[in-house]
Amino acid sequence: MPNADLRDLIAIKRDGGVLSPDQIDTFVRAAGDGSAPDVHLASMLMAIFCRGLSTEERTAYSLSMMRSGDVLDWSHLDRPTADKHSTGGVGDKVSLIWAPLMAAVGYAVPMISGRGLGHTGGTLDKLESIPGFRTDLDAAEMDAVLREVGCVMVGQTATLVPADRTLYALRSRTATVPTVDHIAPSIMSKKLAEGARALVLDVKVGSGAFMKTREDAQHLADVMVAIGQGAGRQVAAILSDMSTPLGNAVGNSLEVAESVDCLRGGGPDDLRALVLDLAQACVEVSGTAADVGLPERGAALRVRLAGALDDGSAMACFEHLVRRQGGDVASLRDPSRLAGVADTQVSVQITERAGRVSAIDALDVGLAAAALGGGRGANGEAPHPGVGVVLAKKIGDPVASGEVWAHLHHAATSDVLRARDLLDSALTITPC
Amino acid sequence: MPNADLRDLIAIKRDGGVLSPDQIDTFVRAAGDGSAPDVHLASMLMAIFCRGLSTEERTAYSLSMMRSGDVLDWSHLDRPTADKHSTGGVGDKVSLIWAPLMAAVGYAVPMISGRGLGHTGGTLDKLESIPGFRTDLDAAEMDAVLREVGCVMVGQTATLVPADRTLYALRSRTATVPTVDHIAPSIMSKKLAEGARALVLDVKVGSGAFMKTREDAQHLADVMVAIGQGAGRQVAAILSDMSTPLGNAVGNSLEVAESVDCLRGGGPDDLRALVLDLAQACVEVSGTAADVGLPERGAALRVRLAGALDDGSAMACFEHLVRRQGGDVASLRDPSRLAGVADTQVSVQITERAGRVSAIDALDVGLAAAALGGGRGANGEAPHPGVGVVLAKKIGDPVASGEVWAHLHHAATSDVLRARDLLDSALTITPC
Repeated sequence: MPNADLRDLIAIKRDGGVLSPDQIDTFVRAAGDGSAPDVHLASMLMAIFCRGLSTEERTAYSLSMMRSGDVLDWSHLDRPTADKHSTGGVGDKVSLIWAPLMAAVGYAVPMISGRGLGHTGGTLDKLESIPGFRTDLDAAEMDAVLREVGCVMVGQTATLVPADRTLYALRSRTATVPTVDHIAPSIMSKKLAEGARALVLDVKVGSGAFMKTREDAQHLADVMVAIGQGAGRQVAAILSDMSTPLGNAVGNSLEVAESVDCLRGGGPDDLRALVLDLAQACVEVSGTAADVGLPERGAALRVRLAGALDDGSAMACFEHLVRRQGGDVASLRDPSRLAGVADTQVSVQITERAGRVSAIDALDVGLAAAALGGGRGANGEAPHPGVGVVLAKKIGDPVASGEVWAHLHHAATSDVLRARDLLDSALTITPC
Repeated sequence: MPNADLRDLIAIKRDGGVLSPDQIDTFVRAAGDGSAPDVHLASMLMAIFCRGLSTEERTAYSLSMMRSGDVLDWSHLDRPTADKHSTGGVGDKVSLIWAPLMAAVGYAVPMISGRGLGHTGGTLDKLESIPGFRTDLDAAEMDAVLREVGCVMVGQTATLVPADRTLYALRSRTATVPTVDHIAPSIMSKKLAEGARALVLDVKVGSGAFMKTREDAQHLADVMVAIGQGAGRQVAAILSDMSTPLGNAVGNSLEVAESVDCLRGGGPDDLRALVLDLAQACVEVSGTAADVGLPERGAALRVRLAGALDDGSAMACFEHLVRRQGGDVASLRDPSRLAGVADTQVSVQITERAGRVSAIDALDVGLAAAALGGGRGANGEAPHPGVGVVLAKKIGDPVASGEVWAHLHHAATSDVLRARDLLDSALTITPC
């Protein structure tokens, strides 16, 4: 009676006990193969929420989920593998820059990304605003692109971590989402299944992020690093600010254009700095830096990495990636060719106050972009690729009354008034 | 979006918060009317298991479940109402004696009983071993019998506490049974819906009971009393021993015969004492003792109650009850007329050891009766009414080698060897 067994396992966790790796595997396999009634899974999810998991339990949970589906193997490649994960933020287009940068310096980056959730954009949505870009590569195509380009960026397939898909949906229905004991194994199982040996985690903290406090973000980072290490991977984590949007652009096509700026050695300072932080941390933790000819550490390593942005080699990788995945490379040089680029813009001006920008709230800006149609609808409707917000001012900039501080790119279905209200409330100016 | 609301309530409890009576009512109504997906209910059941409930929450939970169905009203009767509940034990036939006794002294007892669970017998199963006895009275019949006899003993109807039926089934599936936060509201909601104003609770403690330790039993008793008081009822609780069977007889027809002995002023001492304890406690707590002409308390009250057993008035009530509910009254005087009385008996003798009986384990005896066919099968098969165990010796009795200490009453389908093995392990003899 497998169901009776599962109830015994629920009882162990319910009473505050520790589950063995085999017991966790029984639970996860039952979720993955659909053999357990949902009420058993629901009860276990809540028992885990309330009683928590040990480091060993979280690692076992992640590995069991990983094993519920395909596990990619890149050991035949002649490059060391690396990947990154972000917990999601407003204006977070780092992956579009980081992956080609890491490829340019000699790593292989087999990146599997998600779509936007709520007010945060997803890497797949951004990539698909490049006309023709395909994210649904099969295993052979993925392998070929990765060999040729050094990186590949695709969506999750149904055969990767199916147990997580079941439990992810059920976590939402059972109010068991907000705990690292589920979040970290859910994230890490997917990253472990992707097969990269080195992994850098970008844990966002602030109003626009899932983790609102530095303490919570650090805890999530620590838990994920411990899981990765427990699974034998090289893992580093960085906490990055999400109290204000990353870079200036928020919106899928707008963010692709900004990513291209950064890949050409330009772009907003905060975006470039974070890309380099994450690349440096990954190279340093990988244990394979010497293999790719990057023996430097610290500032010297950073100079080498920045060079790959400034000398065009990262951009060349991105163009190669876009071409191999069916995208229109010309759109990278001419953003007007990106999908749905809105031909109507509204400038948002400073009203009354003058002084210095002291805050631009990430959540408000994210919700403004969503009001314009840039978010995924409650029923999964695709975001409008062209709409969004481009900030003309950032925190610390002096502003005068009447000066433009943001541009709204909108479409026929955009709720421009609501977006403007949200931007108004996002902005805080401190008199000089 | 009622489901979204329910998730909000789950999150409150999950995070250790306190739910308001209205919030608990939302949860219970969703269970009662079938509007909530089972996974929401499962998650809430586990959150309650892990985080616990306050006294006020438990009372609200009980009252909400009570209100999910019919609530019986006996205010039109000219007698005060009283009822008892037992948490269940081996050989527990107290209700069959207690209800007519309370009726005989002037109370109205509208008793709704359950069937056996596991190794413990149910009052309904025992009553139905009286040929013709009907426990499925409708509301009008129940009212008529209660008016005429002073007590009525029926099964739970589908319209009484439907939310509890849903949650009861789900508690078993979600491994959320063993907590007073669910057990006490489940019991008390049914007792509150029965409408009796005075209630005495018989909380069993020991191997044959759900509660194995005195501490756990006292906690359950305290919690149930607090719920009853919170609901405005007069409630008393007694802890009674279930380390050894109550009385001598275990098995449905066998227990009816022993109950008749007790109603005639005889029967085993431990059974008679517990019946009187529970009657005395109920009368004393009821606040209506004077209304029925029982102004005495303590020992003097007990003498009055014992008199109703010894003078035949309680037995007269039981005969009246049996007749009005369609049962064969002659079977009370001639136990061979009770259903399925097994014509094959095996005597169980003392082997080797001689001395004094120091323990007869209740669980082992209950399992022995079940092995003979006296329990409810895993798929709900009705118990065999005639089989069971009758103890010839009780704790403290001196025994000699070869002496008979128990009789097995078995049927064609009985597993006599297993029953005998269980009885062997039940018995402990200490050398004198």
